[in-house]
Amino acid sequence: MENKVIRDRLSALREKMAAYGIDYYLMPTSDYHNSEYAADFFKAREYFCGFTGSNGTLVVSKDWAGMWTDGRYFIQAEREMEGTGVTLYRMGEEGIPTISEYLTDNMNSGEVLGFDGKVVPAKEGLSYENKLKKKQVKIKFDRDLAGEVWSERPELPCNQIYVLSDELCGKSFSEKLADVRKEMEENNAKAYLLCKLDDICWLTNLRGNDVECNPVILSYLFITTKNVYMFVQFDELNDEVRTYCENNGIELVAYNRIISWLDEYEYEGVTLYDERNVSYSVYRTIKDNSENRGAVVKNILDPTELMKACKNETELKNIREVYIRDSAVLTKFIYWVKKEAPKGELNEYTAAMHLDAMRAELPGFIELSFPTISAYKDNAAMMHYEATEESNAKIEPESFLLVDSGGTYMGGTTDVTRTIVMGPVSDEEKKHYTLTAVGMLQLANARFLEGCSGKNLDILARIPLWNIGVDYKCGTGHGIGYMLNVHEGPHSIRWKSRSVEDEAPLKAGMIVSDEPGVYLEGKYGIRIENIIEVVSDVKNSDGQFLSFDHLTYVPLDLDAIDTNYLQPKDIDAINEYHKMVFNKISPLIEEEEIKNWLKDATRPIEK
Amino acid sequence: MENKVIRDRLSALREKMAAYGIDYYLMPTSDYHNSEYAADFFKAREYFCGFTGSNGTLVVSKDWAGMWTDGRYFIQAEREMEGTGVTLYRMGEEGIPTISEYLTDNMNSGEVLGFDGKVVPAKEGLSYENKLKKKQVKIKFDRDLAGEVWSERPELPCNQIYVLSDELCGKSFSEKLADVRKEMEENNAKAYLLCKLDDICWLTNLRGNDVECNPVILSYLFITTKNVYMFVQFDELNDEVRTYCENNGIELVAYNRIISWLDEYEYEGVTLYDERNVSYSVYRTIKDNSENRGAVVKNILDPTELMKACKNETELKNIREVYIRDSAVLTKFIYWVKKEAPKGELNEYTAAMHLDAMRAELPGFIELSFPTISAYKDNAAMMHYEATEESNAKIEPESFLLVDSGGTYMGGTTDVTRTIVMGPVSDEEKKHYTLTAVGMLQLANARFLEGCSGKNLDILARIPLWNIGVDYKCGTGHGIGYMLNVHEGPHSIRWKSRSVEDEAPLKAGMIVSDEPGVYLEGKYGIRIENIIEVVSDVKNSDGQFLSFDHLTYVPLDLDAIDTNYLQPKDIDAINEYHKMVFNKISPLIEEEEIKNWLKDATRPIEK
Repeated sequence: MENKVIRDRLSALREKMAAYGIDYYLMPTSDYHNSEYAADFFKAREYFCGFTGSNGTLVVSKDWAGMWTDGRYFIQAEREMEGTGVTLYRMGEEGIPTISEYLTDNMNSGEVLGFDGKVVPAKEGLSYENKLKKKQVKIKFDRDLAGEVWSERPELPCNQIYVLSDELCGKSFSEKLADVRKEMEENNAKAYLLCKLDDICWLTNLRGNDVECNPVILSYLFITTKNVYMFVQFDELNDEVRTYCENNGIELVAYNRIISWLDEYEYEGVTLYDERNVSYSVYRTIKDNSENRGAVVKNILDPTELMKACKNETELKNIREVYIRDSAVLTKFIYWVKKEAPKGELNEYTAAMHLDAMRAELPGFIELSFPTISAYKDNAAMMHYEATEESNAKIEPESFLLVDSGGTYMGGTTDVTRTIVMGPVSDEEKKHYTLTAVGMLQLANARFLEGCSGKNLDILARIPLWNIGVDYKCGTGHGIGYMLNVHEGPHSIRWKSRSVEDEAPLKAGMIVSDEPGVYLEGKYGIRIENIIEVVSDVKNSDGQFLSFDHLTYVPLDLDAIDTNYLQPKDIDAINEYHKMVFNKISPLIEEEEIKNWLKDATRPIEK
Repeated sequence: MENKVIRDRLSALREKMAAYGIDYYLMPTSDYHNSEYAADFFKAREYFCGFTGSNGTLVVSKDWAGMWTDGRYFIQAEREMEGTGVTLYRMGEEGIPTISEYLTDNMNSGEVLGFDGKVVPAKEGLSYENKLKKKQVKIKFDRDLAGEVWSERPELPCNQIYVLSDELCGKSFSEKLADVRKEMEENNAKAYLLCKLDDICWLTNLRGNDVECNPVILSYLFITTKNVYMFVQFDELNDEVRTYCENNGIELVAYNRIISWLDEYEYEGVTLYDERNVSYSVYRTIKDNSENRGAVVKNILDPTELMKACKNETELKNIREVYIRDSAVLTKFIYWVKKEAPKGELNEYTAAMHLDAMRAELPGFIELSFPTISAYKDNAAMMHYEATEESNAKIEPESFLLVDSGGTYMGGTTDVTRTIVMGPVSDEEKKHYTLTAVGMLQLANARFLEGCSGKNLDILARIPLWNIGVDYKCGTGHGIGYMLNVHEGPHSIRWKSRSVEDEAPLKAGMIVSDEPGVYLEGKYGIRIENIIEVVSDVKNSDGQFLSFDHLTYVPLDLDAIDTNYLQPKDIDAINEYHKMVFNKISPLIEEEEIKNWLKDATRPIEK
């Protein structure tokens, strides 16, 4: 059946394309800052083809349209795009061209490729530019054609900005700015353009609410040796924020003026940027203007990324407290769900709603740090599963419920996963649960020399599973923000690195997740995730050793522990962890019944 | 006191320098192929300054001479160069310029830097070239000035070449050549210059005896799409070798014609080379001549390196047998030294001589694979210690004797280290020995996914020691040749990589050492080294797993095992290993007394 709505939208787009002399128009999935979540305002690709997945790029010509997405979404995209006339390109499958290859093969010399350069990451735009150069294809990136057609487009997110006190941040904006300017000086730079939203918020000690689950502000920051310009939507400002900016020498410029402002700026010497985080429009604007004036741009890794990753003492103190409160809530939820489930009235969605409501009552709660994953039994084998009110599984009194959740509070952002026994579990389920727990604790209990990256350590979490021929197809850990994004770099824990940042050495003050798991399609999924803090350990003639402290204190589920798979040191590790859990969490639990349950849930085990 | 001998030599060198218009003359420590050991012929640096260490570069001007070496040799160099007038430059110390920095600061525009470009690695030569370009310094690299002065210079090594049968190699030269030409084709190359001696020997199935402990031939190999030219000293050839070369289409060219031949060659298209392995002279010759003809040179990692590292089935079969025989000899030596030492008449050197003699009696013995390290007590804390007839320690009935040794046989090259209890050992010695053994076996018993490099695995050997705050300042493992060098790449096991090759993924058929240790200055040194073979393990939907098989079967010393530091799985690992040792080795031991001792030395232990 024809999808007339989409076909009409594509026709309207094609009219605009003809009017502007554009032969191919491309729409990716990204906001202006390559954020993890894109607001509805940015969902042009969805508007013009119907596909709602989190990754996809639509390309339209006058008589053809193609949509590229990855293996997670082939079935969904096929279904959602039925009748639209848009062809699905299954990325990674044999014989399927990449977008660049398709365009190189199909565009004629002198034709024009159009896209809104503000939503195309610089690297991607440059790759099109380089590959199409040979064919004399021109690129037109200064028009948001989709926006011109899209009649009832949602508003750009525009929410109140707020100021965090220096007491809460541990370091004032001016101190952080001095550190950044020192990096600029070391790079002989006159200016530095910062586009990554969590880095801007970290640096300015400001927060907002413009990206789902990320308390960030749609903004840019341009720092010179003397001035700081912050590009924001003025409707997001109140008097307090204006005063704060004035007192801190932050000059406010309208968010939508970024390109024209950068176009007019008189560049001199070196301007720094991070190619991972700038859009193609921003890149071309600073690059072309710099060169016209005999100045240069220099690609660096945003220095703020490492500064932000190494939490200061104030942040760490607050984070530790927030994690204990958050752990207590999840512990209470586990008690509740184990009691409620046998009644047969819970489903994944209602369980998640209950947990979300419990978290929302905690002091200083701001928002969830990501949509709660509540996945029962085989649903938990899908890493990107999300239950909804309409589509969810009933929780039966058997197997596992996997709950991955977290909140952002005044004082920290949390992330934690527990896999909860809902009733009888098989020997295989117990084996996998036990070895996942062993791996999680083995990594958390490691001592290692400064200079190690997650690439060196990953195997400690993974080897109990590798030894039985099982792997989890993802990294073991990611960094986490302070009242910021739940995923942040530069460090991570993964055995295969994707890029140079993945090999960033771990440093004291970094926090990182430790989340091995087992995912058996059609059967069940297990993930146990603690957040751990890198701390200084002994220093001797062999060097400075580091180790981890737990931030998460939530019981493991002893109902799924099979001591046959445990060495004495593993039993000690579980018992020591559970002793800490009880000591840290029990003071926050008033209900005698839950406290007694917790006492039992954290009881010492032996072989 | 003045060292007149050296001063006279330097004067003679300066006269030559003046005659050829050379202002500074540089002599590194390398042969024409950057081999691990340089023959006496190449010891010009030693001849002109007296310093005998394995790493050092001498630079001489008309009124100054400086010698750069690293921290291992500061004291020795100071002593050996006394009275020579040569200044010691302590590399790595604060304020000490590098050679490039020194030359940049001190050479005047238009002056000439001279060296024999055949003994300077291309990378090093290029670095001088680039840094001195700004000062208009000219480089003259076509004269071996030292050789012109050095009157009684030792001969260039020149030993008989011999042919290995295809049965022994498992793959004929022509098959290997086809693989190499395939790589050339993939690189669109018309020619490929191979300078690394063990790679040339591996490819041609020829062996020689031109580098100490390495059964290699001083040679170059130039491969085109149609021809193969091998540059060797004709005195090394006999009829068998000549016939073999003729039958295999290998055209023989005199070794010393390499530069003039490369100078005359009519380059076309792409010529491949590996910048790690070519000398500056060779590089300049192929590069400049290629460019003059509109052809190009392309730097690659020698493809032979990976081919050579992945042993074929024949090689593996032979290697396994050779390691069992070699293990039996070392086991007998351990029995002997434990029995002899209490008599108080052994020293490190006599013990080593005894072991070397035992090995020499094995069938197919060719030579030691490196000079035997026999280090008693605190001497073993020095990783580069070598006992000599003149300088050695007496072996007392206490503490440890560390013996690191190996041989090259028809059928394989071995390397093994055992640390042997000579009498009472302290609790600390036992703890360190036990945890070293745990690390060695933990790595050897790992199962891991294809794609892992040594960087992912290193921590398995190291973490038992890291957990008690102890580190060893070297990698955990290196590759080993087949009747070739005891150190070969591309793979290794180390947590800090020095270069991209260090991250070469492990592949089935590779062999690698597994040698954690503890080195306490002034106290003792422990190293336990097994050689292990990478083997295919289960393959399932999670991927292809790999694991290791032992090649080395020599008992660990139970006298130094303290079960307090062992988990049940570690005890199992020791007992399983010892069971294999007894089963593999005892059939090769005829003496009833030794067999009984071995039975006891490999007895099962329990907590």
